[in-house]
Amino acid sequence: MYRTHNCGVLNLSNRGEKVILSGWVHKSRDLGGMTFIDLRDRYGKTQLVFNMETNPELCSKARKLGREYVIRAEGMVVERSNKNPNMPTGDIEIIVESLDVLNKSQLPPFTIEDDTDGGDELRMKYRYLDLRREPVKHNIIHRHRVAQETRKYLDSQGFIEIETPVLIKSTPEGARDFVVPSRVHPGSFYALPQSPQIFKQLLMISGFDKYFQIVRCFRDEDLRADRQPEFTQIDCEMSFVERDDVLDAFEGLAVYLFKAIKNYDIKESFPRITYDQAVSEYGTDKPDIRFGMKIGDITGKVKGSGFNVFDNSEYTGGIVATGCAAYSRKDLDGMTDFVKRPQIGAGGLVYVKYNEDGSFKSSVDKFFSPEDLKGLTDLMDARPGDLILILSGERTQTLYALSELRLEMGDRLGLRDKEQFKPLWIVDFPLLEWDDETQRYYAMHHPFTSPKTEDLHMLESDPGKVRANSYDLVINGVEIGGGSIRIHDAEIQKKMLRVLGFTDEEANSQFGFLMNAFRYGAPPHGGIAFGFDRWVALFAGSETIRDFIAFPKNNAGRDVMIDSPSKISDDQLNELNLQLIRKGI
Amino acid sequence: MYRTHNCGVLNLSNRGEKVILSGWVHKSRDLGGMTFIDLRDRYGKTQLVFNMETNPELCSKARKLGREYVIRAEGMVVERSNKNPNMPTGDIEIIVESLDVLNKSQLPPFTIEDDTDGGDELRMKYRYLDLRREPVKHNIIHRHRVAQETRKYLDSQGFIEIETPVLIKSTPEGARDFVVPSRVHPGSFYALPQSPQIFKQLLMISGFDKYFQIVRCFRDEDLRADRQPEFTQIDCEMSFVERDDVLDAFEGLAVYLFKAIKNYDIKESFPRITYDQAVSEYGTDKPDIRFGMKIGDITGKVKGSGFNVFDNSEYTGGIVATGCAAYSRKDLDGMTDFVKRPQIGAGGLVYVKYNEDGSFKSSVDKFFSPEDLKGLTDLMDARPGDLILILSGERTQTLYALSELRLEMGDRLGLRDKEQFKPLWIVDFPLLEWDDETQRYYAMHHPFTSPKTEDLHMLESDPGKVRANSYDLVINGVEIGGGSIRIHDAEIQKKMLRVLGFTDEEANSQFGFLMNAFRYGAPPHGGIAFGFDRWVALFAGSETIRDFIAFPKNNAGRDVMIDSPSKISDDQLNELNLQLIRKGI
Repeated sequence: MYRTHNCGVLNLSNRGEKVILSGWVHKSRDLGGMTFIDLRDRYGKTQLVFNMETNPELCSKARKLGREYVIRAEGMVVERSNKNPNMPTGDIEIIVESLDVLNKSQLPPFTIEDDTDGGDELRMKYRYLDLRREPVKHNIIHRHRVAQETRKYLDSQGFIEIETPVLIKSTPEGARDFVVPSRVHPGSFYALPQSPQIFKQLLMISGFDKYFQIVRCFRDEDLRADRQPEFTQIDCEMSFVERDDVLDAFEGLAVYLFKAIKNYDIKESFPRITYDQAVSEYGTDKPDIRFGMKIGDITGKVKGSGFNVFDNSEYTGGIVATGCAAYSRKDLDGMTDFVKRPQIGAGGLVYVKYNEDGSFKSSVDKFFSPEDLKGLTDLMDARPGDLILILSGERTQTLYALSELRLEMGDRLGLRDKEQFKPLWIVDFPLLEWDDETQRYYAMHHPFTSPKTEDLHMLESDPGKVRANSYDLVINGVEIGGGSIRIHDAEIQKKMLRVLGFTDEEANSQFGFLMNAFRYGAPPHGGIAFGFDRWVALFAGSETIRDFIAFPKNNAGRDVMIDSPSKISDDQLNELNLQLIRKGI
Repeated sequence: MYRTHNCGVLNLSNRGEKVILSGWVHKSRDLGGMTFIDLRDRYGKTQLVFNMETNPELCSKARKLGREYVIRAEGMVVERSNKNPNMPTGDIEIIVESLDVLNKSQLPPFTIEDDTDGGDELRMKYRYLDLRREPVKHNIIHRHRVAQETRKYLDSQGFIEIETPVLIKSTPEGARDFVVPSRVHPGSFYALPQSPQIFKQLLMISGFDKYFQIVRCFRDEDLRADRQPEFTQIDCEMSFVERDDVLDAFEGLAVYLFKAIKNYDIKESFPRITYDQAVSEYGTDKPDIRFGMKIGDITGKVKGSGFNVFDNSEYTGGIVATGCAAYSRKDLDGMTDFVKRPQIGAGGLVYVKYNEDGSFKSSVDKFFSPEDLKGLTDLMDARPGDLILILSGERTQTLYALSELRLEMGDRLGLRDKEQFKPLWIVDFPLLEWDDETQRYYAMHHPFTSPKTEDLHMLESDPGKVRANSYDLVINGVEIGGGSIRIHDAEIQKKMLRVLGFTDEEANSQFGFLMNAFRYGAPPHGGIAFGFDRWVALFAGSETIRDFIAFPKNNAGRDVMIDSPSKISDDQLNELNLQLIRKGI
């Protein structure tokens, strides 16, 4: 028998018991005639004691144990004289009577501590050792807990988890598919799903009514920081629903999870604002509403002042930084540098200080009288002591820059409290995006998203104006999930694919089975998908999804631990009827 | 609003309520001046009533609805005069006041009934319609239930569900991998996992202690009936365990699931018998122990009788068919034909009738005196009225044939009760299998299975004799899962790979990271994996796993609904740095 107890449970109630523990040597200390070992396992740490005087042979054996050795120890639970209130087992220790080394360990390449000395690359290579560290271990267990609670809740609401296939069919729409050559059908390929979208719609047509799945998805994207080629989704779909039925259902899930996972109460229902409103008030479709500081459109107010920049700009807008009128020249230069960074891209920053004494000081004093500025501060609801920061330029780009500036000011003013969660729904996204390069429309969500009924008449005449019956859940500035009411009419689907540039033949070869399915009694339906990795990270107050994946790939899509992807043998290639293209020969 | 209730909940307590229902037109009947429609959804069926006299317009509209139309109906719940006790909603009907057609339907290619007129191919092509049928829908919901309960139980036992990667690395051992070409790393490939074996072992080295996952696995096998290229496994691993700890833990899971899913009590602990015992008593390592009829080895008893077949055979064995002494010539000829079928492969069948009156009649009377036969029946524990069936030949093959004969007799005698479940563990499998063709040993389970400690000394000197510390769970003759205690010592793992014909270099390039991991404090560990598709089918009394997969592939590995695998574009191939080999040009 390897153990009677784990390393996290013994306490004073076990005093006098003979126990067996197994685990890893976390730390070892020799103090005078005594040796103390912290024995570690998943559940905690327990102090083992060896006495050179009473049992010199055993104590000498203990002194030879290295860090991370795996041992089994038998002994007696006794009360500690020197208690450690920071450990659940801190009131006791084990007087060891016998000791077995179950496995030795080389010295790990980094310390197994909360703050390790190991760099990122090294820890990824030895991920199995990195996972021994308390914070990483905790993330993985936390992920398990979120998955369990998600399933529990959705099951209780009548959702059925249905597994959809991983070996499916490549479609040219959207991101690139990973493909899997078929050996049995030479020259043919499966594809890995970017999402189970079509299958969940078919399940609605089958009548399953409420479906969910926590499911792996795959996207062969170009490399970006913190993107994984495989990621996990909470994928959901419902029949006979309108938009608000879906939002209500998943607001329920979010509220439940915040309570179950973080014991965090969300009492107010989530605001539901349109994409247009989000962009004009926050400069983004992912607003962080933990704080106000909404963007004010002052284009009309400032045009014609003689200030070139304002006069020639499509859009001028600003935010009010409460109580920042006393910002120094240096502070303001810092803000200017911030907005001029290439990833933000503003040309410059205009400020208006509304001083405590009611006077104004601005970088555009030459063009605006104090009365003009008073009118401006009134329009923006600023008060004495506040600072107005203004950007000007092309509308979309300026709003984006204002959104970044707003977040930066939120950070500086400590308004983005990590312990606070403010979810909201963004609805009515544009259905389509025009791409200048390929001179065609792309679906903003995907080609199965339903246009809003009232915009349907413009689908062919003015597709760029059509709004989608779609929605995103955003929490603290992070998009957690998104979805839509789907098209369930074969004719509308056909039209939609035509707008996306599919010939009827292409549409038929790619999505024929779905459009065919629509002809056999497709119910109205809609759904949503959540980025599970992101959900899990958000609950833990982090934005780095890689920390919540047991075996993540690096930013180059490589698993450096197992060294994958890697070469395969010529025999394997041959069997698959494939050969590498030799370039440059 | 599409509905106030679903189609399975209304009853007399709702009498007089105004309700809205949505669903599919299941059946429609015109009787005199009335039209009755069974409206169907996932939850049940509800009868809608239309009256030509009181509302001719609406009734005419209803008469135009075709099968599988999707409709929305508003009306009043009333008590039925003609109640249907077979339906939960059979006491009521809805007097419809308004009706909307949400979607039309073409006539389905087969009837949406429990016993459909659709053939297998047609139903697979229109799987989304097949899934509407009650038995198929029920299978999928049942699968969900088994998954939920499995997770609930394992979570309650401290197991953590951890997602392991799907894009991993190809290894040449075992079945063929599906591979995934990398675009970002041209010429390199990921592979899809045949199981998360190595990752779960690494998780034990990480200290997660108890892991599970319900996980998709992939195997590029040649085609066989009822094999799927992708399948689902309940994958589990535990640390600091010996064999019986693992068996106890998963016996717990099995007992829990039988109770939770089928309300079936298993009170006795599962028998644990060795592979050798299973093969000699049942002729198979997957014995159905719902009935006895063990195989008796009578080689010693019958050798030297002068009967050529017995005298020259390595092995002679038989089974006792209780109460079958009165079998006719025709019955016995039928049994003989059965064992001579090519897939069973026996040369012939010898019988001994132990008549009710104590006399004997056998096909080998010429060579055996009544006293000889008495001795034989005594040895085999036969009684007057019983029939002994005997096969003779090469031992392994004869035992296999006896095993098939035993199952056939079990079926004929009605001893294989579908409502009864008799699990048992088979332990101590051979570690290795010799393959004549490639002249090398293969791991019977996989290369990470630990030899039994007492056999370890033979690993290099006499590998064929080494038993594995492995186990299978068998229920009613079906292997439901299997696993082993793993090697956790780098040196033994190295030896094992050497025995399997790996050079140290190959071993290092394929499994180097695992053997390296063993050097940093690997705990003793072991685990098990269950075929989830098979589990689910077993609970439902079926052996056809395809019926329990929402979107299965056919026996050629094709999804005929979405038409996959399929061609991909030359651009896609080019991006992957691949080209097809053009054969015969």
